[in-house]
Amino acid sequence: MIVVMKQGATSAQIANVAARIEQLGCGVHLSEGEERTIIGIIGNGRPLDREQIERMDGVERTVPILRPFKLASRDFHPQDTVVSINGLVIGGRQIIVMAGPCAVESHDQLLETARAVKSANAHVLRGGAFKPRTSPYSFQGLGEEGLRILAAVREETGLPVVTEVMAPQQVPLVTTYADILQIGARSMQNYALLHAVGEAQRPVLLKRGMMSTVEELLMAAEYILSHGNDRVILCERGIRTFEHYTRNTIDISAVPLLKQLSHLPVVVDPSHGTGKWNLVEPVSRAAVAAGADGLLIEGHPRPEEALSDGAQSLKPARFAELMKGLRPVAEAVGRTL
Amino acid sequence: MIVVMKQGATSAQIANVAARIEQLGCGVHLSEGEERTIIGIIGNGRPLDREQIERMDGVERTVPILRPFKLASRDFHPQDTVVSINGLVIGGRQIIVMAGPCAVESHDQLLETARAVKSANAHVLRGGAFKPRTSPYSFQGLGEEGLRILAAVREETGLPVVTEVMAPQQVPLVTTYADILQIGARSMQNYALLHAVGEAQRPVLLKRGMMSTVEELLMAAEYILSHGNDRVILCERGIRTFEHYTRNTIDISAVPLLKQLSHLPVVVDPSHGTGKWNLVEPVSRAAVAAGADGLLIEGHPRPEEALSDGAQSLKPARFAELMKGLRPVAEAVGRTL
Amino acid sequence: MIVVMKQGATSAQIANVAARIEQLGCGVHLSEGEERTIIGIIGNGRPLDREQIERMDGVERTVPILRPFKLASRDFHPQDTVVSINGLVIGGRQIIVMAGPCAVESHDQLLETARAVKSANAHVLRGGAFKPRTSPYSFQGLGEEGLRILAAVREETGLPVVTEVMAPQQVPLVTTYADILQIGARSMQNYALLHAVGEAQRPVLLKRGMMSTVEELLMAAEYILSHGNDRVILCERGIRTFEHYTRNTIDISAVPLLKQLSHLPVVVDPSHGTGKWNLVEPVSRAAVAAGADGLLIEGHPRPEEALSDGAQSLKPARFAELMKGLRPVAEAVGRTL
Amino acid sequence: MIVVMKQGATSAQIANVAARIEQLGCGVHLSEGEERTIIGIIGNGRPLDREQIERMDGVERTVPILRPFKLASRDFHPQDTVVSINGLVIGGRQIIVMAGPCAVESHDQLLETARAVKSANAHVLRGGAFKPRTSPYSFQGLGEEGLRILAAVREETGLPVVTEVMAPQQVPLVTTYADILQIGARSMQNYALLHAVGEAQRPVLLKRGMMSTVEELLMAAEYILSHGNDRVILCERGIRTFEHYTRNTIDISAVPLLKQLSHLPVVVDPSHGTGKWNLVEPVSRAAVAAGADGLLIEGHPRPEEALSDGAQSLKPARFAELMKGLRPVAEAVGRTL
Repeated sequence: MIVVMKQGATSAQIANVAARIEQLGCGVHLSEGEERTIIGIIGNGRPLDREQIERMDGVERTVPILRPFKLASRDFHPQDTVVSINGLVIGGRQIIVMAGPCAVESHDQLLETARAVKSANAHVLRGGAFKPRTSPYSFQGLGEEGLRILAAVREETGLPVVTEVMAPQQVPLVTTYADILQIGARSMQNYALLHAVGEAQRPVLLKRGMMSTVEELLMAAEYILSHGNDRVILCERGIRTFEHYTRNTIDISAVPLLKQLSHLPVVVDPSHGTGKWNLVEPVSRAAVAAGADGLLIEGHPRPEEALSDGAQSLKPARFAELMKGLRPVAEAVGRTL
Repeated sequence: MIVVMKQGATSAQIANVAARIEQLGCGVHLSEGEERTIIGIIGNGRPLDREQIERMDGVERTVPILRPFKLASRDFHPQDTVVSINGLVIGGRQIIVMAGPCAVESHDQLLETARAVKSANAHVLRGGAFKPRTSPYSFQGLGEEGLRILAAVREETGLPVVTEVMAPQQVPLVTTYADILQIGARSMQNYALLHAVGEAQRPVLLKRGMMSTVEELLMAAEYILSHGNDRVILCERGIRTFEHYTRNTIDISAVPLLKQLSHLPVVVDPSHGTGKWNLVEPVSRAAVAAGADGLLIEGHPRPEEALSDGAQSLKPARFAELMKGLRPVAEAVGRTL
Repeated sequence: MIVVMKQGATSAQIANVAARIEQLGCGVHLSEGEERTIIGIIGNGRPLDREQIERMDGVERTVPILRPFKLASRDFHPQDTVVSINGLVIGGRQIIVMAGPCAVESHDQLLETARAVKSANAHVLRGGAFKPRTSPYSFQGLGEEGLRILAAVREETGLPVVTEVMAPQQVPLVTTYADILQIGARSMQNYALLHAVGEAQRPVLLKRGMMSTVEELLMAAEYILSHGNDRVILCERGIRTFEHYTRNTIDISAVPLLKQLSHLPVVVDPSHGTGKWNLVEPVSRAAVAAGADGLLIEGHPRPEEALSDGAQSLKPARFAELMKGLRPVAEAVGRTL
Repeated sequence: MIVVMKQGATSAQIANVAARIEQLGCGVHLSEGEERTIIGIIGNGRPLDREQIERMDGVERTVPILRPFKLASRDFHPQDTVVSINGLVIGGRQIIVMAGPCAVESHDQLLETARAVKSANAHVLRGGAFKPRTSPYSFQGLGEEGLRILAAVREETGLPVVTEVMAPQQVPLVTTYADILQIGARSMQNYALLHAVGEAQRPVLLKRGMMSTVEELLMAAEYILSHGNDRVILCERGIRTFEHYTRNTIDISAVPLLKQLSHLPVVVDPSHGTGKWNLVEPVSRAAVAAGADGLLIEGHPRPEEALSDGAQSLKPARFAELMKGLRPVAEAVGRTL
């Protein structure tokens, strides 16, 4: 960390800041420029409270130098992390596609969807049993019944399942049914939940909050890693901007950026990211071209027939077409599908 | 809700959408313009899934008409809600100031701070026992020990206390110690937590998420209200924007807007909103002038001497000055302090 | 446009609004719901001032229904617009790559750069003679001297050139030298300039403002088109968000969205969009995979040796590699390079 | 500026960067930490190109230390700048209110409005003759005819006038009619225009771009100041965020922040900032309480009767009430109205 003193800071103020830094067990490195004195802090490995220093007289501001994440960083762990689930490998050469309905509605709906997922050569079944909803009046998911359906359909199709967990006390229950625990965008900074999945024996798919920076996403991963779970998959799902033709704005450069900063696998969710079915296909291709390790696709983003006959709703023909169009793009960047 | 059909939508497509809406139990109101057909949906009181309709052939987009919140709306509850705590009234004529340290560190620190709060004529003591921190390596708060200190200092000073609750399972514990339960910005869409405090017997101070809309804040309040707790205090604490000289951007117009849309009291947190002590005083005045019912002020946003001798850290002289400067502004808009 | 009346709006207020709409030459379509009255406005082709209606008593808000752009819309012009420059076609099957230095510095620098651009099989030479700079103390470009160098290098290499025009009075001058006039992001809503290039006899490369919506970009195109110039190329170059690891956030879904809403060609500028050289290659691939018609690449985003020996600075090897890696992606989506 | 080297940067890379910095005429200050080497650059007064350094091998990133504005900074000019116009003082103890219609429509409309402005004790008449409009099909203002009307009404009422100038070539014309030249939000980075008004003999009201940081606003002011015009008035008018209940988000903390960073007067435009008449009054009060030196208020943000009988449209009663309510707030913060 670097402390920038105000123009005209007195030598007493500078000495005071230096003394305080040493009192905190850090080294001091003074650099007096023509207009400003800069104080470099030589750390002792423990995080330092920027605001504590910023309150001191004569200080203009502080500038962090080191990235605050460590276990999640590529500096710390240079080789790619690869997450294996029953023979399936996420973060390797193969692009992994996870698809399925937003919410599990019934066994029939899910089974039919899963068959379409499988026949299109996708790899993982997704589906929500616990649903975070903006309105308390919206359908909140089937709960444990939904988990049982997911497990049953996994038996019948062989597809591993990923499903969201929303609260720390749900972690043991969801762990017994799911292959991958999903942390939703609204939960990315739910620290009690990150702690809980950090102690679970399951890979975690961690979605970027719609209001979170790349650094905060990596800090959320750091929470999970620091509690002992090193199987974390990062997911870019669009951030909130002023643009409103799309629901969110997919941050495509976050994909190569995350791959550079971190060793963890990165997947992209074009369904939530765009909110429009007819953008899912081009954005899926873009994600693969940008270096994503996988995709998370909503089989039917609330299709026309929903609760009644949602099973058709994956629109198998269209999804199969998407998968087909994805293959040459994957190959163009040296990957397989 | 209104459905805008694509230019050139066929009459079969229009009929299909109309049929689907009726199947969902709603009425249909057709309006054929020169370029587009518009279908108005006459609701049946239950929320409708926009995306389900948007997937249908020939649909360009849907436009919501009604506000999705109800219990929180002024339409539903025209008179102001007033929250009473041991004789203190939030949402009335008097501006309520809640002040104290970011984190409870020790009994001595909190007591000395509380005395400064009280002698400056502020009304509520704030202080964190459970702290949400971006880094897993930062101080996470004293936990229950912090709650015990808060309760002890309340005994000694008579100041009611507000403190954050971070997870559903903490609610019963925090409820036994605190007068007001605080939901932090990062938890505003933690639905399990909103549900839990909705069933608690304590007023709730609900902070706006740093990238949540006014509508989402009111929907989060709706969760709490719909679970039976009608004592909700809304808190504007700054939103995330591209501007980086300040930590967040206080959305000052959210204050009168929330007062127009809702009957709930509105307070402002200028400390987190700006992140800079020297902006807290002018923004506090602005908040009161804009119609806020109260303020949440961090006594020492991590002061210089922190854990060692943080008790001085409220800088009582400066806080007292802020309170003194606030009084004429309150009176200028017909309020008291 | 639709007018949503307040709950409890009186019939006199509703009648007033209806009368006002008719007075403006539009038709009225009333729809009385249980909670709100909705007034549909049947337009007469001329734009209507939303705020004028919103000021009326009893009105809650208005909702626009039609897109405000017309000449730029695909509804109006269903087939793709193709821009031809000396045999080169932008918006056809071939991906067009425009590359070169940020600023023209000297004839030698530009010529050497241009040869690298050409030998890597890129198609257009870019380079700034007039430079918009945040600081009045930064290098503002060589001006007309830079334009002369561009023209000379075009003679020597056969590459058409694109360069920025910053003010209406520069348009005639720049037109005499350049093949494509570039409107920079900061000028996207410089209406006097849009008017001027709308009357020029050159294709226009219109960059999206860094905080402009897709709709505002299309409205800026509409200005140019409505002044008679129908050769407009849209350019996504990243928008401003809260994320700060990258300079801007490339809005990748804007590419297919613009192609759906409009008939104009769409190119992407990954250099300004990311601000980091090592993200340019993956984002270039993503842009092509998402359906972009071309790329605008800064040969050396201010390379190490700048004014002294910037000629090497295109790093021809690396650019050639980028071009090479792009070809299979282009082919994977049915395009050529 | 500080250069942060990558972890594991070689000593050859470090030496290279140091050599390059010295070649640019700057001093070097090396600081080797445990994990990173930091290179401090001791400047020579000229701006340095960050990206040029960031391209060098082994460099992770650069961190600017000094603020890039100088003439606009309070460090450079500690006392407040006060702008005088015919005896009126902007930036002194008195709050200055500038009010009037969005667009000048006719002599009668403007005169009636101006009389209402004057009788409510406001100080300056605003009104647009050249109007920047998002749509090429909207009313673009009366042009020079509008300027003549402004000047005539100034004669009749004694109110100085402020009006927007949109292009460099309009500056001489507008200067002959107006007392204050307004630079609109969309023109804040129109550098040719900033240059032109920097050479004009009139005070300039510079509006913050809706997508611009506080630093960029000050850099735009720096352009004007550096061309010799030291009478610049800064205007906060709301920034673009994800929140859409209001048109823009007024950045209230920008007011005290600008007053701390700069010596220039600061006014606030609550009409464009909020887009809603019923938020203008509370936000006006907040602006004054936060330390603004003045307000810019749209007399009738497109009133109901517009072109026909807009003269009534200032709604004199309501504006007078706003002025009346503002006075005690001004006095509460030690100002007059």
